[in-house]
Amino acid sequence: MSEIESWQDKLIRSLDKTQNDPVSRFFQLATVDRDGRPNIRTVVCRRFNSNAESIDIITDLRSEKCRQLESNINASICWYFAATREQYRLGCSAKIFHQYIEVTKIKHYWDKLPNKNRLHFFGAPPGQRLTSKDVLVVSNTDLPPPNFAVIRFRIHAAEYLNVSELPHVRILYKLDNHHWQAKPVVA
Amino acid sequence: MSEIESWQDKLIRSLDKTQNDPVSRFFQLATVDRDGRPNIRTVVCRRFNSNAESIDIITDLRSEKCRQLESNINASICWYFAATREQYRLGCSAKIFHQYIEVTKIKHYWDKLPNKNRLHFFGAPPGQRLTSKDVLVVSNTDLPPPNFAVIRFRIHAAEYLNVSELPHVRILYKLDNHHWQAKPVVA
Repeated sequence: MSEIESWQDKLIRSLDKTQNDPVSRFFQLATVDRDGRPNIRTVVCRRFNSNAESIDIITDLRSEKCRQLESNINASICWYFAATREQYRLGCSAKIFHQYIEVTKIKHYWDKLPNKNRLHFFGAPPGQRLTSKDVLVVSNTDLPPPNFAVIRFRIHAAEYLNVSELPHVRILYKLDNHHWQAKPVVA
Repeated sequence: MSEIESWQDKLIRSLDKTQNDPVSRFFQLATVDRDGRPNIRTVVCRRFNSNAESIDIITDLRSEKCRQLESNINASICWYFAATREQYRLGCSAKIFHQYIEVTKIKHYWDKLPNKNRLHFFGAPPGQRLTSKDVLVVSNTDLPPPNFAVIRFRIHAAEYLNVSELPHVRILYKLDNHHWQAKPVVA
């Protein structure tokens, strides 16, 4: 099966081909709430580490997705590249980092964030009813507030789909004793 | 609260503005498997019925998503319109229709399908290992095979997000005694 390109190499190539389009850094993230209901939202990839097989996003610790991941660490990522008509579905487990756990990791992402995006984290919690008195006064954004967090998704299953031509190409990748096994399947 | 536009009207407008881009008909669908893990994939909207507050897709009855929806009817839809920078998150319950339940509904979608897409449904089950002997001989595609199915998602919760400007606009919509209640919240 060694002729089949790894999903990591495929994803690196998709990112490379679409690097000029900011939307290609958006993917959909699904989590499960306490009632067993799925939830999805679009998020921004801050880093894909092909060696560690992980993806990082930044988020607000007060968000719904953090509460859901605290009770169920399983997550599913769907990354569709409209330009190349390729889709990656990634089965992951999530770990949430905030400044009391890992200051350096947090600071790394905070430093890369433009000031207008930093301000977001000093406001009222996401999902709270909007009130007219939500006036934000922030004097210093050099350091992140305690609710700024990084979520790292470790990938343990992957599926590649390419619908640019017929027949569609679909490959399942599974971790078997620390080695990825690829299986072409019916699309 | 009557000044807030309904999510249905907003979605109609987003679809209208993006009608020339086929990719704007794609959305992400999350389901939950028997182990409580989320699963996402990109699917194509075949119909949004704003009065019935439902969305239809077509699928293969032998697909993973059908198995998952049979054990847990809860689904979550994330529809991101890259052109307008609007996102709709829809909480739904799913119902699967196939020809033994509702022939007319099935036939309606089958008739609209190009022949090359119809052929897909006569092949081996999706997810099955690809073998070289998968040669497809189909003499007549006028009628759908028993595995052709329609999934109807009834929407019971919605969230609208617009990130085209700062501050971002986020509105939660909930069904309260058959009436939708809108609540602007922190994005």
